[in-house]
Amino acid sequence: MHALKVTRAEDFPEWYQAVVREADLAELSPTRGCMIIKAWGMGLWERIQGELDRRIKETGHDNYYFPLLIPLSFFAKEAEHVEGFAKEMAVVTHHRLKAVDGALKPDPDAELAEPLIIRPTSETIIGDAFSRWIRSYRDLPLKLNQWANVMRWEMRTRLFLRTAEFLWQEGHTAHVDEADAMAETMLALELYRELAENFLAMPVVVGEKPENERFPGAVRTYSIEAMMQDGKALQAGTSHYLGTNFAHAQNIRFQDKEGGMALAHTTSWGVSTRLIGGAIMTHGDDDGMRTPPAAAPRQVVIVPMLRNKPEDAELKQYCAALAAELNWASALGAPVRAYVDEKDTKPADKRWDWVRRGAPIICEIGPRDAGGGNVTFMRRDKLRDGEKIASQTIDKAAFVGGVGALLADIQASLYAEAKARLDQNIRADFKTFADLERYYGTAEDEREFKGWARVPWSRPTGAALEEIGDRLKTLKLTIRNAPLAQPAAFGACVFSGAPGVEEILIGRAY
Amino acid sequence: MHALKVTRAEDFPEWYQAVVREADLAELSPTRGCMIIKAWGMGLWERIQGELDRRIKETGHDNYYFPLLIPLSFFAKEAEHVEGFAKEMAVVTHHRLKAVDGALKPDPDAELAEPLIIRPTSETIIGDAFSRWIRSYRDLPLKLNQWANVMRWEMRTRLFLRTAEFLWQEGHTAHVDEADAMAETMLALELYRELAENFLAMPVVVGEKPENERFPGAVRTYSIEAMMQDGKALQAGTSHYLGTNFAHAQNIRFQDKEGGMALAHTTSWGVSTRLIGGAIMTHGDDDGMRTPPAAAPRQVVIVPMLRNKPEDAELKQYCAALAAELNWASALGAPVRAYVDEKDTKPADKRWDWVRRGAPIICEIGPRDAGGGNVTFMRRDKLRDGEKIASQTIDKAAFVGGVGALLADIQASLYAEAKARLDQNIRADFKTFADLERYYGTAEDEREFKGWARVPWSRPTGAALEEIGDRLKTLKLTIRNAPLAQPAAFGACVFSGAPGVEEILIGRAY
Repeated sequence: MHALKVTRAEDFPEWYQAVVREADLAELSPTRGCMIIKAWGMGLWERIQGELDRRIKETGHDNYYFPLLIPLSFFAKEAEHVEGFAKEMAVVTHHRLKAVDGALKPDPDAELAEPLIIRPTSETIIGDAFSRWIRSYRDLPLKLNQWANVMRWEMRTRLFLRTAEFLWQEGHTAHVDEADAMAETMLALELYRELAENFLAMPVVVGEKPENERFPGAVRTYSIEAMMQDGKALQAGTSHYLGTNFAHAQNIRFQDKEGGMALAHTTSWGVSTRLIGGAIMTHGDDDGMRTPPAAAPRQVVIVPMLRNKPEDAELKQYCAALAAELNWASALGAPVRAYVDEKDTKPADKRWDWVRRGAPIICEIGPRDAGGGNVTFMRRDKLRDGEKIASQTIDKAAFVGGVGALLADIQASLYAEAKARLDQNIRADFKTFADLERYYGTAEDEREFKGWARVPWSRPTGAALEEIGDRLKTLKLTIRNAPLAQPAAFGACVFSGAPGVEEILIGRAY
Repeated sequence: MHALKVTRAEDFPEWYQAVVREADLAELSPTRGCMIIKAWGMGLWERIQGELDRRIKETGHDNYYFPLLIPLSFFAKEAEHVEGFAKEMAVVTHHRLKAVDGALKPDPDAELAEPLIIRPTSETIIGDAFSRWIRSYRDLPLKLNQWANVMRWEMRTRLFLRTAEFLWQEGHTAHVDEADAMAETMLALELYRELAENFLAMPVVVGEKPENERFPGAVRTYSIEAMMQDGKALQAGTSHYLGTNFAHAQNIRFQDKEGGMALAHTTSWGVSTRLIGGAIMTHGDDDGMRTPPAAAPRQVVIVPMLRNKPEDAELKQYCAALAAELNWASALGAPVRAYVDEKDTKPADKRWDWVRRGAPIICEIGPRDAGGGNVTFMRRDKLRDGEKIASQTIDKAAFVGGVGALLADIQASLYAEAKARLDQNIRADFKTFADLERYYGTAEDEREFKGWARVPWSRPTGAALEEIGDRLKTLKLTIRNAPLAQPAAFGACVFSGAPGVEEILIGRAY
C-alpha cells in the first residue's frame, strides 16, 4: 500500500497527476488550460526564484518589469519569431464590457484600434526599449531580467509542463559583439545547469539544439535536458544567442569605439515553473513527491502526536522548542527551515500529507519522545524498509546536531539516484537508423522505459534535417541536443552514413 | 541649481514625472497606459515585496497563484462587483493570429466561446476555489495571498499612481464568522500601516472609508492614507471585510461545529506599486528621490574618483574593501547593502545619478581618502547646506562603525519630517461647509498646498451621502476615511448641522 492510488509502473502520466494533486502543488483552474498553483507548489517556486534571482543578480543583471500586453505590430517585425508564436497568442481586442440585453459583452465602442497580445515572451517589447536606451558602446553590455507570467495558448495541457499561462524568468541582454553575447549565452546556460543539479538535484545534459528546434528568431539555442523516471526527456531551460536578428528588426544600434554605427548582439534565456514538473518526475515515488532539501519550503516538519489531552500542552512546547533549535542550525549553506504542524486534524493524516508533499524529514513526536528528550523521524527519501515505514528515534541533541549533515545527505542521495539513472540510460550502441527503429519502434507501449540514444551525425540542415525529423517522429523521437562535451572522433552518421561531425542525444520528450 | 530641471514649488506634477524618469524608476511603455519599471524602481518594489511577504507569512498566510484570465461569467455573479469594474476590463476574445492579406489579424476561427477578462482583482476566481476547497469549519480560516499583475483600463495614467497594468499583492481569506473575518481585516490593515510607516517612513492615517468609497461588493473598506508634499492624499492600501456577499454569490459554505451549513465570511486586502509613487511624493526633493534606507536596494553607494591612471587600481581595491566591511555591518536589523559603482562614466555623473535615485549615503572616494584611510560621504536626506553640497570626511573605521546608526538616523529623520508635515496640515477648525468652501474653494490654483480637513459628521448614507459627495466634488475634495482614533465627543455635522457621530478626513487626492 502506497500513499498514492496509482504507481509509476502502473501508469506514469496518471501517477504524475496524482502527485501534483495530492501534494498540494497545483490544480487545473476553471480558466481553460490555466493552473492554480497551491501553497506547496508556490513555496517551491519561490525557493527556485530566490536562488536563481540571487545568482542572476550576482552575475550583473538587474530586474526590470515590462508590460504584459504587447502591440500586435511589434511581433510583425521579426518574421520567424511571429510565425513561431502566432498560433498560440491570446489577443486582447476590447477594453470595456457593456450590458447588452441583460448580458455582459465586450463593448463594441471599446474595440482597440490595434489588438494587444498577452506576452508569449518579451523579446519584441524589450528590444524596443533597448533601441531607445542604447546609444553608445558605453551602454553595453545591457543585462536585464524579468520575473513574469506569460501565455501560450496550448490545446493539450499538463500541469507545470504545458499550460496556457506559466510563470517564468526571462533574461534579455545586448552586447557589442558576438563573442560577448555568446559568453553571456553560455553563462546563463551554466546558471541553469547549476540550479538544476545543485539546487533541484536534477542532473542534466547541457548542449546545443539542432537548427529545427531553435527558438524562433535565434541563431543558436542551447538547452538543459533532464531524464524523467519514464525515460523521457524534459527540456528544463534554454538560452539563446539571437545574433543581430532582433537588433536588425528593432533597430538596436550603437556608436562603437571607432565612431561608426553597429548592430547590437542580443541574447535571451528562460526557465519556468516547468522545473517543478521536472523535479516531480525526477524525484517522486509511489508515496508522492520527494522534495530536494535545498528547494523544500519546509525541510523538517514536526507532527506532534496530539490526543486532545492535558499532556498536549507539554508536547506542543517540546515541539516548538525543537523547531526553534533546528531553525538555529544550518543546512546546505542556509538556516534550517523547520515547521510544527499544529493543524486540527489527525496526526496520521498529517504524516501522510507531508509524505505526499515530500518534506525531506518528518518528525513524529509523541509524549514518550518528549519525556525522554528524543526525536522520532523518517527520511522521506528512504521512507520504507520493504513495505514498512522506516523511522528511527534518537536523542534530541544528536538530531539537532546532525540535521545539517542529514539534509545534505538527502540532497546528495536524491542527486546520486537521478544521476545514476541518467548515466545508465543513455545508450550509445546504435549504428544505423534501423538500430534505433528496432529499439524504440518495437515498443508495444510508448510508455515503456527506453531512455535516450547518443548517436553520431553529420549535422545536416534545411530539408535534409527536416527529413530526419520526420523519420524520428515516426518513432515518437526528437533530437534533444548536441552535448557540449564531445568525443575527439565520431562514427558515421546514423541517418546517412556520411562522416559524423558531432554526437547528439535522441529521446522521447515532454 | 538642482539636479532636476523642475522644482516641487514650480510644478509638482512635472517634478514627479521628472523624478520618476531621472531616478531610473520607470517610464511609459509603447503599450498604452502601461509602464516599464526600471532597475531602481524594481529594486524598491522587490524590497517592499520581501518585507511584506515575510510579515504576511509570519501571520499565517500561504502564497498561491491564480490564473491571470477570468471567465467573464464569473464576474456576473456579484452585481456590485462587476458594475465597479466592467468599464475598465481588458477583454481577451481570440487565441490565435492569422495572416489576412499579408497582415496579422485575430483569427476569426479562433474566437473564444466565452471572453476572458484580465484580472482587475481576483475575488471571483479565488472565491470559486474557496467554494471547492472549503467543506468544514476545520478548513477555516483559509488565509492566502498572491503577488500578481492586474489590469484596470485607465484613461488618464500617471506612472506608479494610475496605470492600466500594475503589480500588487492581494490577500484573500475565509472565516467562520464576522468576528474572525473582521480581526483579519484589521490585521492586514495594521500590516500596511507598519509597512508604510516603519519601512517606507511614510506616516499614514488609518481609518474606514465612507459607504460611497467602498470596494465594489464590500461591507466595510479600510484604508491607509498618506499626505503627499503637495498636500494631497494618497490611498496607499486597502483592506475589505466582504461579509458573506461573495460567499453568497459563489456558494462558499461550510459545515459548522453543530453540523449545520453556514456561509463563510471573507476578506480581501491589497497594496501595489502605487506605494512607490507615495514614497516619491513623500520623500523626494528638488534633487530627486530620497529613498528610505530600510527600503533602498543600495544603502551606501561608493563612487571611486577614477582618472584612468595607474593609481586607479589601488583606489578600486580600497573601495572594494570598504564595501566588504560595510556589508558585514548591520543597519535597521539587516546587513548593510553597500555597492561600488565602477561604471565607465565620469565620477560626477555617477554622483548625480545616485543623488537623483536617492541612495541614502553616497561616498566619493579619491586617492587622498584612500591614502589617508578616510571616507568622504554625503547624506542624501541632508544633501545641501544652503546651495552647497554637504559632504564630510571621516576615518574609515569610524564610518564603518557608525554606518548602522547613520542609516537608522536617516530613516528616522525622513519619517519625522513627513510626520510633522502630516500632523501640521490637518486642520480641524471647520464648523460648516461654507468654512470648507472658503478655505479650499478660494484657491486660485488647485495646486496650492492645502492639506486636509478633519471634520465631524453625522455619517449619512445613500442619497444624503451622494449629495455630500457632489458638494465636495465642486471643491475637488473627497472623504478619505474616518480615522480609527476618534475623540469622545463630536461637534455638529459640517454638512447638515445634525449631531456629529464621528470625525472624517477630507482632502484632495490622487
